[in-house]
Amino acid sequence: MAEALRLGVAGLGTVGGSLVRLLERHGNEFAVRNGRRVRITSVCARDRSRDRGFDISAYTWFDDPVDMAASDEIDVFVELMGGADGVAHGSVKQALKAGKHVVTANKALLATHGNALAELADEIGVSLNFEAAAAGGIPVIKTMREALSGNNVSRVYGILNGTCNYILTRMEHEGLTFDACLAEAQRLGYAEADPAFDIGGQDTAHKLALLTAIAFGTRVELDSIYVEGITSVTPADIVAADELGYRIKLLGVANRTETGIEQRVHLAMVPKSSVLARVEGVTNAVAVDGDFVGQLVLSGPGAGGEATASAVAADIADLARGDRMSTFGRPASTLEPYRRAAMRRHAGGYYVRLSVYDRPGAFAAIAKRMAEADISLESIVQRARAPRTAAPSHMEPEAPQPVILVTYETTEKAIRDALAAILGDGHIADGPQMIRIENLD
Amino acid sequence: MAEALRLGVAGLGTVGGSLVRLLERHGNEFAVRNGRRVRITSVCARDRSRDRGFDISAYTWFDDPVDMAASDEIDVFVELMGGADGVAHGSVKQALKAGKHVVTANKALLATHGNALAELADEIGVSLNFEAAAAGGIPVIKTMREALSGNNVSRVYGILNGTCNYILTRMEHEGLTFDACLAEAQRLGYAEADPAFDIGGQDTAHKLALLTAIAFGTRVELDSIYVEGITSVTPADIVAADELGYRIKLLGVANRTETGIEQRVHLAMVPKSSVLARVEGVTNAVAVDGDFVGQLVLSGPGAGGEATASAVAADIADLARGDRMSTFGRPASTLEPYRRAAMRRHAGGYYVRLSVYDRPGAFAAIAKRMAEADISLESIVQRARAPRTAAPSHMEPEAPQPVILVTYETTEKAIRDALAAILGDGHIADGPQMIRIENLD
Repeated sequence: MAEALRLGVAGLGTVGGSLVRLLERHGNEFAVRNGRRVRITSVCARDRSRDRGFDISAYTWFDDPVDMAASDEIDVFVELMGGADGVAHGSVKQALKAGKHVVTANKALLATHGNALAELADEIGVSLNFEAAAAGGIPVIKTMREALSGNNVSRVYGILNGTCNYILTRMEHEGLTFDACLAEAQRLGYAEADPAFDIGGQDTAHKLALLTAIAFGTRVELDSIYVEGITSVTPADIVAADELGYRIKLLGVANRTETGIEQRVHLAMVPKSSVLARVEGVTNAVAVDGDFVGQLVLSGPGAGGEATASAVAADIADLARGDRMSTFGRPASTLEPYRRAAMRRHAGGYYVRLSVYDRPGAFAAIAKRMAEADISLESIVQRARAPRTAAPSHMEPEAPQPVILVTYETTEKAIRDALAAILGDGHIADGPQMIRIENLD
Repeated sequence: MAEALRLGVAGLGTVGGSLVRLLERHGNEFAVRNGRRVRITSVCARDRSRDRGFDISAYTWFDDPVDMAASDEIDVFVELMGGADGVAHGSVKQALKAGKHVVTANKALLATHGNALAELADEIGVSLNFEAAAAGGIPVIKTMREALSGNNVSRVYGILNGTCNYILTRMEHEGLTFDACLAEAQRLGYAEADPAFDIGGQDTAHKLALLTAIAFGTRVELDSIYVEGITSVTPADIVAADELGYRIKLLGVANRTETGIEQRVHLAMVPKSSVLARVEGVTNAVAVDGDFVGQLVLSGPGAGGEATASAVAADIADLARGDRMSTFGRPASTLEPYRRAAMRRHAGGYYVRLSVYDRPGAFAAIAKRMAEADISLESIVQRARAPRTAAPSHMEPEAPQPVILVTYETTEKAIRDALAAILGDGHIADGPQMIRIENLD
């Protein structure tokens, strides 16, 4: 058997610690499977003295990951620190320049600097592997880079953030508000103290940017992604979705259109019959449509130390066997420029919920605005107002009533124009809620 | 770029034809992705003159695949003929001996001769790849051999036969009988004229044998698989499953137990909340439980020419890049002997449907037999008999009534003993129906 592949691990938090335990527990088996032993030789973390539940005295300690990245003691630099810039970026660049393979779980780094890093890896002739960066334990990078090599991919989409999916699932099952479910997620450790990055959709966007590049052979383009978060969703939307045959999910979607590539992150109504509708709690799922394979769906844990370590170990296994794949599935020099399809041209059905003042002509005005924008309505649900009690004088004469509209396929521009006009007419209280319908087969 | 990797394709049916079209359509892209061009140089099929919709004149024709397997014109022998023995077996052996890599979609061949072929491939130092053999277009072999390299797998299971899943899904949606759905499946081309191999569970068993070997690092052991088919399922079972919160699927399951490995193929009740319950029609799905990754589920097309060609192309892509993996995920010499867990020790819940003669003491006798076998009942559903009409004299006094029992966890031996005793007591008409409950998280 060849000499051991030597790893330097930068970052000994949840994922780094799990990786150490994985290699302790399965090291022998790993060597049998891949024909080569792997061995951690060096580590680096913020605090040398912290009790991590395992002994780091056998490893060379580095205070600075950039130093470790250039060390003669390592063949592979395993970056588990996180962060798009700063020391993560500096040390990964250093490692590549020093001729080390890099394995990273850092989606922000690759979504931000992926093009340049992939070029650098190609130039030096080393691997930059990032299975853990896109969907935690789900082997979607391997699947797209390798298993779909014979396919032209038309769409990749998925539930890529466990925090959001947990909140949406709890709202659905318990009838609770968004705020209540977020608080619960924070209590259980499924959401950060500052949840903005997850619930605002940016985490999903980072992951989507990586999947898009592999799917379409284009340069990574984070800044072109249309991003909405999940904070606007209400129990009324969840109930309406259920009645209409949908579930509400935060999706990241990338698809080819005639005018370019759409990358978008937003709440979507997905048919209950779809596999994605069934993905509950913190589980993630990714679907890929290829011209030969049809549709593949991969689901599993999108986060967590152990699942993420499993993906990091898979990248290390590829290196142990000597398997090399280009960062984004093809040489960086052959990645095509990204051509963005304007979001206003997005075509699809829309769910719209309005709080309409209960006055004569209000509904007619709304219908007129939809017709002016050439939007056909598939369904209209106007809830009966609460039955008048014995004391009708207390009722607000103009109390707004919920009206739910579902459109046939139209465009983002048309629906936005129509909603702006409806808002301007003054017949609705609050802003309209709008959720895109994702037509999944 | 290196010289083209030269392929000899044996078998130009649905899959072979799709592979030819895939390489015609995506050959350039494939070369960019994998750093090496691939080229079909030779073909072989039963009938040279048949119109396949593509031109085979550019390829060297072989009448005998064994000759092609040894030809200097090829680097890779692509076996798409099928059949466990005969020419498929002979030509694959010949190809390996001649130092050719082999890519095959032939589950019967590998389930039957996999151990010897894997040893031969190791001895010669070539690859034997079979992504298309286990679940059609779903990249479960790559996932298990490579992506789960850092995991100890405790269970692998799935819906591995599209014909059966189509029939079961139709029975569920349309309330039709098994025979009616089978006839429909045959009309639509989802079932063979002789469907025995699919509906009897053998096709699932072949695929399961391959997944088991990789999951547990054991020698392939087809003959030890416990196999039941789906022909016993009735609309009454489908309705009862629905009411109890389950769906009925034909599963292939392999799991580690204290006494060895269970491999079993049978109808199972799976919770409606599970991802597998949602897998409909001809779609397949495979779930793997690993100690670090948790649970992964992969779903997609399990059959069909194009999807299968996608998997064959993935195996070819690995060879084009020079990636080598042992046939069953580790050198054949390190595969452990298979240790079979006796089916009578299988532990789980059971659904039982009985046609009970409506006479005093019948139900008490059944309950007594269950108690004697130490079986606790989680639920008992006795349908009210049809209301007596104005002419009760026409009623059969002893007309059998359906009784449905759901047990808590017990053993296969206990339930079989109890059902044999119940049958012996003479209170039930027909044999009892028994369906295992698969507790999926």
